[in-house]
Amino acid sequence: MKTVRIALIGYGNVGKAFAAMLLRKEDYIREAFDAKAIITGICTKSRGVCLCPDGIDTETLTDDMFNKELDDFALIDSGEYDVMIELTPINIMTGQPATDHIRRALQRGKHVITANKGPIAWYYRELRDLAKKQGVGFCHEATVMDGTPVYNLTKETLKGCRITEVSGIFNATTNFILTEMEKGVSFEDAVEEGRRQGFVEADASMDIDGWDASAKLTALMNVLMDVEITPLDIDRTGIGGITKDDIDAAKAQGKRIKLLCRGRVEDGKPVGTVKPTWVDEHTLPAIMDATSSYVTIDTDLMGATTVIEEPFEPEIDHTAYGVLSDLFRILTDYENGF
Amino acid sequence: MKTVRIALIGYGNVGKAFAAMLLRKEDYIREAFDAKAIITGICTKSRGVCLCPDGIDTETLTDDMFNKELDDFALIDSGEYDVMIELTPINIMTGQPATDHIRRALQRGKHVITANKGPIAWYYRELRDLAKKQGVGFCHEATVMDGTPVYNLTKETLKGCRITEVSGIFNATTNFILTEMEKGVSFEDAVEEGRRQGFVEADASMDIDGWDASAKLTALMNVLMDVEITPLDIDRTGIGGITKDDIDAAKAQGKRIKLLCRGRVEDGKPVGTVKPTWVDEHTLPAIMDATSSYVTIDTDLMGATTVIEEPFEPEIDHTAYGVLSDLFRILTDYENGF
Repeated sequence: MKTVRIALIGYGNVGKAFAAMLLRKEDYIREAFDAKAIITGICTKSRGVCLCPDGIDTETLTDDMFNKELDDFALIDSGEYDVMIELTPINIMTGQPATDHIRRALQRGKHVITANKGPIAWYYRELRDLAKKQGVGFCHEATVMDGTPVYNLTKETLKGCRITEVSGIFNATTNFILTEMEKGVSFEDAVEEGRRQGFVEADASMDIDGWDASAKLTALMNVLMDVEITPLDIDRTGIGGITKDDIDAAKAQGKRIKLLCRGRVEDGKPVGTVKPTWVDEHTLPAIMDATSSYVTIDTDLMGATTVIEEPFEPEIDHTAYGVLSDLFRILTDYENGF
Repeated sequence: MKTVRIALIGYGNVGKAFAAMLLRKEDYIREAFDAKAIITGICTKSRGVCLCPDGIDTETLTDDMFNKELDDFALIDSGEYDVMIELTPINIMTGQPATDHIRRALQRGKHVITANKGPIAWYYRELRDLAKKQGVGFCHEATVMDGTPVYNLTKETLKGCRITEVSGIFNATTNFILTEMEKGVSFEDAVEEGRRQGFVEADASMDIDGWDASAKLTALMNVLMDVEITPLDIDRTGIGGITKDDIDAAKAQGKRIKLLCRGRVEDGKPVGTVKPTWVDEHTLPAIMDATSSYVTIDTDLMGATTVIEEPFEPEIDHTAYGVLSDLFRILTDYENGF
């Protein structure tokens, strides 16, 4: 039986949910891959680094098992691991420090999984090519629609198709706010309610101004359509300008307002747009309530395939599964590599 | 470069569309798999068998290249091929003769792809176990929702998940008839219009009575939930009893009538139902117009993933892509086997 050693860079809610899911699926991993997955290193910004080459018992992990003198690069550059999982907080405008983490791990010839869309939106091509050169896996399923298969779906089940367009609703926060406003709730109260439910950030502007959706659209276009753009290239309009009157005017015509994303290549140039759009109430975007989202992938060979993420409790497990499914992808693709 | 030799059992519209798509994707197959795929045998009921170990030029194929003295088993049992693709007409009530074709090819240690749901609804476990024992691939993506990934999606991108329920709209013909009836068209005229458009069979009863949907639900449950049922085990109600009055009554309440399928395991027993159901107009099943369909796959780890098939012209290419994607699956999984 092979042992797969994992380094977790970042250990917040997703990291903890992933560690718990790994334990829950121990038997499956043994049966399906003849492998045991252990976490040999964890790094957090506040606590430092915990190292244990034989595997950290995450169920009994305490603060005093961390070494405050060590930082992220101590683990990334010198730790003993096969797969680095990058889970640090996102900076949508720079993709850092996640990109540096990923680059350094790939340079060491380690497989990399990330749930952080920043590096995919800003540095995808460089990182993809580096992973290829090093002969390792580089997976990022959880960066769009959590554990719902989008990247792995395209790579594994739409082989041979050219992707001609990606579109959909990618941002749950704005969708939630628009849904609440339709019920008569004010913009401000909807944001507050989202905060109370835990999925609107203290600073909601990245969502409201369309940056999060733009980063996801950029990531999808970079990966699926092999272009090289950044979130700055997206024609972006947020929902900050949407008023109760707009919502009511749409409703009166049997429409709803949704923050739609759409990316394609026109005359050889990538064109991505994120903007509030009136949609007929009997269409797919219109029925995406609250935190539901979807991606439609258009192809040359067989038209459009749409995949929907439905709300799931606990939501954090959905993201954790995205990371876990990438680990299974790497165990499948590199089965003789551990 | 490896050569992958294909035997086509059945050469109707799907077979021809597949052969054309294979030519169209010749470059991709060479680049992605370092392979050349050739068709070394074709068998049809009326024309007999065409054999050409160096590859049949399907663009110039004529009737006189077939040997009328040879039958399907002459090709299956003695032909030179690596992958058998079973495309004969379905018999929903028996799964034959497709099952015999598949069994014999697997017994010879050949990979098998089928677009025929009969064998999956009636003999899946036997055939799956035989393929496993022989160390070959057995793929059937096109049996549900044509080329839209369902089986390959679950196998490749939902690894480690236990499937707790499958549901959706699986039959395009009945969905088309119900959509037409909502426009005021009579049942009989809707069937006639479907025939004119080419997707309603001369004998429409397999669709209308829910047998096609039941066979697909059975196939999904057998494969994804590891049960062993036949279409006879499904609690089945067709749409033959739906009247214009029913449609109008539903509409008056903001509802639509859809032929919903649902399968799960209750108290250790598989329970599958196919029945016309009133659904709210702002839900996913309600917005599935005409020949659209969808499958929702519920899991233990990350909730539900839904995948939608949207109408595509030519529809036959959608099915052909399902077969081609299975070929790519086999080329990936058995890359050293050719």
